[in-house]
Amino acid sequence: MKVPVVERIMRANDVLADEVRQTLRENGIVALNIMGAPGSGKTSLIEQTIARLGETTVAVIEGDIATTLDADRLSKLGVQVVQINTGGSCHLDAGMVKMALAQMKLSTLDLLFIENVGNLVCPAEFDIGEYKKVLVSSVPEGHDKVQKYPLMFRLVDAVVLNKTDLMQHVDFDLGVFRSSLTDINSRAPLFEVSCKTADNLDSWVAWVRSQVTS
Amino acid sequence: MKVPVVERIMRANDVLADEVRQTLRENGIVALNIMGAPGSGKTSLIEQTIARLGETTVAVIEGDIATTLDADRLSKLGVQVVQINTGGSCHLDAGMVKMALAQMKLSTLDLLFIENVGNLVCPAEFDIGEYKKVLVSSVPEGHDKVQKYPLMFRLVDAVVLNKTDLMQHVDFDLGVFRSSLTDINSRAPLFEVSCKTADNLDSWVAWVRSQVTS
Repeated sequence: MKVPVVERIMRANDVLADEVRQTLRENGIVALNIMGAPGSGKTSLIEQTIARLGETTVAVIEGDIATTLDADRLSKLGVQVVQINTGGSCHLDAGMVKMALAQMKLSTLDLLFIENVGNLVCPAEFDIGEYKKVLVSSVPEGHDKVQKYPLMFRLVDAVVLNKTDLMQHVDFDLGVFRSSLTDINSRAPLFEVSCKTADNLDSWVAWVRSQVTS
Repeated sequence: MKVPVVERIMRANDVLADEVRQTLRENGIVALNIMGAPGSGKTSLIEQTIARLGETTVAVIEGDIATTLDADRLSKLGVQVVQINTGGSCHLDAGMVKMALAQMKLSTLDLLFIENVGNLVCPAEFDIGEYKKVLVSSVPEGHDKVQKYPLMFRLVDAVVLNKTDLMQHVDFDLGVFRSSLTDINSRAPLFEVSCKTADNLDSWVAWVRSQVTS
């Protein structure tokens, strides 16, 4: 009995994801679904990116199981932020994003970051109507994460490897990480950055900007 | 339609969990369910603990979405290891553990580590027949994880904060982490360790040993 019901939920989600995508398209908004393990630095990446985007008008949907800690951080940047608390759900779904969009002023927006729940597994399986999927991985998680969580790394359009400032303090083989990623997903560009030291963020920000203007 | 079906699956899991618990009890085996985010150091903690346990006879069930990377690491320690690849599932369930136990020599075992899939959300909800639940968190994940993933921190019997050697290189407020944990779960002991430098592992190992002999 399990599989048919799950398929039905997935299909319902896909219908809602198409509605979200349509709303975003009508308003000329590019939405990036930012995924990654807990503590990989998703919120920090969004903060650093917004600070560098200049003229682009940005908003954020913050997905968390509980608390408004990340939304509070982001609202200090003077951008629209809507918090989704999933209660217990391990990922955002399109219905949640649709409800969040209903509370936002969309007409002036260029770019929407949707920060998913911290999780390397479940968010990969749910289309939330985004334009592109981005994965934030981080150096202290280890170089084996590409192989151990293949679906997530396979599905995304870009990978950000964060916390490169910790490279010298942990056992991380950058060659293994790079080659595993190329093996599993050769089309996703890899950006190796440190959100803490702001190192090497320029090419990532240029990629984000290119999504908005393309 | 969704909720009743999920409830039925959960109940089926609980029946299997009781069977697992019964099998373990009959064989005098203490099972610890080791959970934590990807890269928190679950495998490293198991490695370091096994190396310090002396006379205790240990085995490991390794849960991963894909690969045998962690099982390969652990089998070098000369202990029984069984790998469960969940395919895509974001957590172990009791049925998987039951199948793994069927492939193991149980009669001589004292202690079984069951390393769950790297995930701070889903594994909390599934009883796998363990005796105690242990959560491995790590310093680079940030001090806000207790508040952001409350169910996991609330349910566990012990918390290991790993990678304390990185404390000086990241923005981690140990006071906030400790007080958040006390607020949400006052009965779980907290062990602050570094599996890399082997710092402060003694009290954790003593706790594990006390579970076996109690």
